[in-house]
Amino acid sequence: MTTGVPDQPWRGPKSSQRLAHVLAQPILSGQVREGDRLPNEAEMMARYGAGRPTVREALRLLETRGLIMLKTGPGGGPIVRRPPKGSLSEALSLVLQVEGASFADVTDARIALEPMIARRAAERITEPQLAELEDSIKQLRDHPGDHDVFVAENQRFHTLIAEAAQSVVLDVFVSTLQTIADGVRVGVEYSARKQSAIAAAHASIVEALRAGDPERAEQAMRDHLAEAERYWRHRYPELMTRPVQWTY
Amino acid sequence: MTTGVPDQPWRGPKSSQRLAHVLAQPILSGQVREGDRLPNEAEMMARYGAGRPTVREALRLLETRGLIMLKTGPGGGPIVRRPPKGSLSEALSLVLQVEGASFADVTDARIALEPMIARRAAERITEPQLAELEDSIKQLRDHPGDHDVFVAENQRFHTLIAEAAQSVVLDVFVSTLQTIADGVRVGVEYSARKQSAIAAAHASIVEALRAGDPERAEQAMRDHLAEAERYWRHRYPELMTRPVQWTY
Repeated sequence: MTTGVPDQPWRGPKSSQRLAHVLAQPILSGQVREGDRLPNEAEMMARYGAGRPTVREALRLLETRGLIMLKTGPGGGPIVRRPPKGSLSEALSLVLQVEGASFADVTDARIALEPMIARRAAERITEPQLAELEDSIKQLRDHPGDHDVFVAENQRFHTLIAEAAQSVVLDVFVSTLQTIADGVRVGVEYSARKQSAIAAAHASIVEALRAGDPERAEQAMRDHLAEAERYWRHRYPELMTRPVQWTY
Repeated sequence: MTTGVPDQPWRGPKSSQRLAHVLAQPILSGQVREGDRLPNEAEMMARYGAGRPTVREALRLLETRGLIMLKTGPGGGPIVRRPPKGSLSEALSLVLQVEGASFADVTDARIALEPMIARRAAERITEPQLAELEDSIKQLRDHPGDHDVFVAENQRFHTLIAEAAQSVVLDVFVSTLQTIADGVRVGVEYSARKQSAIAAAHASIVEALRAGDPERAEQAMRDHLAEAERYWRHRYPELMTRPVQWTY
């Protein structure tokens, strides 16, 4: 009891958590698919012998975890979705705020992780992935100074390399850090000249990947990120000390 | 509306999420501390002009995120806690189950991450941290064949090195992966002979760290984890293909 209102007992976390996990199984196993509708609250209460507060809490937990979307209005209800790989960012940003991490700490982790990922990618990358990376560089070069193209292609480039490394875990980590502290998202701007230098850095990385040269790919990625960090420290010094904030 | 019960409007996620973030600020800023009691439901409803369902959902969200513990019973209520670094494991295990990751994928990520972390640790480790690592090895050697000591010291060893690398982000990643797929947690057993080999591997890593030799520390950690993986593949082949499951 937290409220002193005896006729509305506060349900322990266990019953709603257990129900959430029962409800999650057909979603996680792929038995129901993105866009499918789950039974409504009344049906769930009947089917699982659970009270309305338990069912609501269970649905809210699944919504928090990105497994369903609760559509309101007539004809609404719980709709199955697939949590995006970036969905960890809420949970991670919270832990990092608690730990007192700064934007510099996140950048530093990217500089530690991504060269190692580029090394792995050099050993595993496929021809279609190389072609996609080369297309990304072409887009940058065909749209000099276009901020939106730059933002999209920069993110696409780093995501493609994380995918090419064929580690779903590392891929998830990189996506999450990108969401939490991408320079562009927090207001870093690049001149046309700087964008062209970045396209050249991307091209060096792709050459190393195409050559299947892990050491060179690792070094090229390290140089690229270290250069980005230098630029941020020089142009946006206050940014680096900014604490990570729980984002939602 | 998900229920067709018009007298109980379903609150949109926004109001409870917004309230959760308002309530989180004094916790995240350290203004209230672990063990402190937050106002009860009735006070929160009055203070924030929010309905009971909104307040309850907000508290549940904070509980899900590990920022409070909801104590039931007379004198209960929301108690502030500090989310442990391992609290990401619920969110990560969910994303990994959705992505179809296996235990081998998590092991593989540890083999990629931890050598790089040992390399960083060699450049940053302090004398007290080295002494703690040496003590951990001593504990292993002083209790040959003791399963509980082995489990505790093995985890302590890898956690200490992640801390010595002085990257809160990498430290959080390693803790999370350790929680999701530690060999010992999922039932791997080690003979006294195997435990003694692991103590020796730990000692090689610490020697490299004490020498401040990043390359050697990286290689020693890589050898250690690759050997562990070979052992698991040989002795517990079914374990490696086991899918990661959402744990709670």
